Amino acid sequence: MTAEDRLKALGLQLPAAPAAVAAYRPWSRVGNLVITAGQLPFRDGTLAYAGRLGEQLSVEDGQQAARLCALNAIAQLKSAAGDLENIVQIVRLEGNVHAAPGFVDHPQVLNGASLLMQEVFGDRNRHSRTALGMASMPLGAAVQLSVWAEVLDGV
Amino acid sequence: MTAEDRLKALGLQLPAAPAAVAAYRPWSRVGNLVITAGQLPFRDGTLAYAGRLGEQLSVEDGQQAARLCALNAIAQLKSAAGDLENIVQIVRLEGNVHAAPGFVDHPQVLNGASLLMQEVFGDRNRHSRTALGMASMPLGAAVQLSVWAEVLDGV
Amino acid sequence: MTAEDRLKALGLQLPAAPAAVAAYRPWSRVGNLVITAGQLPFRDGTLAYAGRLGEQLSVEDGQQAARLCALNAIAQLKSAAGDLENIVQIVRLEGNVHAAPGFVDHPQVLNGASLLMQEVFGDRNRHSRTALGMASMPLGAAVQLSVWAEVLDGV
Repeated sequence: MTAEDRLKALGLQLPAAPAAVAAYRPWSRVGNLVITAGQLPFRDGTLAYAGRLGEQLSVEDGQQAARLCALNAIAQLKSAAGDLENIVQIVRLEGNVHAAPGFVDHPQVLNGASLLMQEVFGDRNRHSRTALGMASMPLGAAVQLSVWAEVLDGV
Repeated sequence: MTAEDRLKALGLQLPAAPAAVAAYRPWSRVGNLVITAGQLPFRDGTLAYAGRLGEQLSVEDGQQAARLCALNAIAQLKSAAGDLENIVQIVRLEGNVHAAPGFVDHPQVLNGASLLMQEVFGDRNRHSRTALGMASMPLGAAVQLSVWAEVLDGV
Repeated sequence: MTAEDRLKALGLQLPAAPAAVAAYRPWSRVGNLVITAGQLPFRDGTLAYAGRLGEQLSVEDGQQAARLCALNAIAQLKSAAGDLENIVQIVRLEGNVHAAPGFVDHPQVLNGASLLMQEVFGDRNRHSRTALGMASMPLGAAVQLSVWAEVLDGV
């Protein structure tokens, strides 16, 4: 099964890769490493999850936000690699959670992103991760996620 | 026009690359990738912008702080690459804004850095970006910026 | 002297590389670059330093926490490289401090990690660094540290 097949089996449609919200590119590349810009939980052009974990949003909300960021990141990776089958491995997730002081469940929130990578990339999902708590976020977004991936030579 | 020519045309003088403020190096290199340490908005050895966005500082102040961080990062890249013409591309900006809870304009603030990269590097400016909101910052600085750049083989 | 010799001379025992606390890997690799996941100040399976700098914890506490994160990161690097002598250089430290608003001494705190890298790796310690202030942290940890290292070809 390809990554696209797995997305279909999950009932997920890959969105158009979100445009950058300011003066930068949505992904960049050095050697065989592709890095996405920080992805926000946009759905159909609208920010779907705003607010702070531990306040307006539950851990489950945060997981959905993280999963949506990951889906947008996968769309960026497709744009960078041409085809998701050109991705050798998912290398790193930089997970940033907009949270109230005292919030401690960043890992559970970000599992929303990590598990989607596992479901979609299977054996090619080999990411390490950071999980940090932000005092504020662009547009007030609940989660921001950057993804590193290795792509095939010559892609 | 070289990057140095463009800096001159902008009326900007490249500062001496700021020394690290503690026990690390101001830039490091792995393969052809150079990464700067987190750059603060120092001017002539003094922190020019301290405080939080959304409180003491306006978005325009933040943009000036981000631009100053970027200028210091360019000085680091020159130190790493010998000559700015040895830089193949600007790959990534990691932008961190010291901001009050509820602040949402990190992208506008960090455009101060992104636009300078565009003005100075032109076609070689191909960076993706993260934009995060910090609860506190070294020295109380308004912005901290790390830059990734690819340098030529053999530099 | 090898890095292991230096650890012994410091009276330090390399712990077992801590398992990931969620659905990710404790380190990943792309080309010759190894990146650890965010390391927390665990000792013998227990989080040794929780709370915020500038509140419950002193700068010296924070330095100990950072040093412990670095020790755990070295354990991860050994797991990735097989032997610490296969590490070409320590490239980057991403240092994140859980701190109260107004805290400014992140660099001093993170020197706890940077100095251990110097003590253990000597000439192979060539890291740049970021130092950021987090509003919240997984498990309430005082410090989170990610380390980049270059490993030998073929390792």
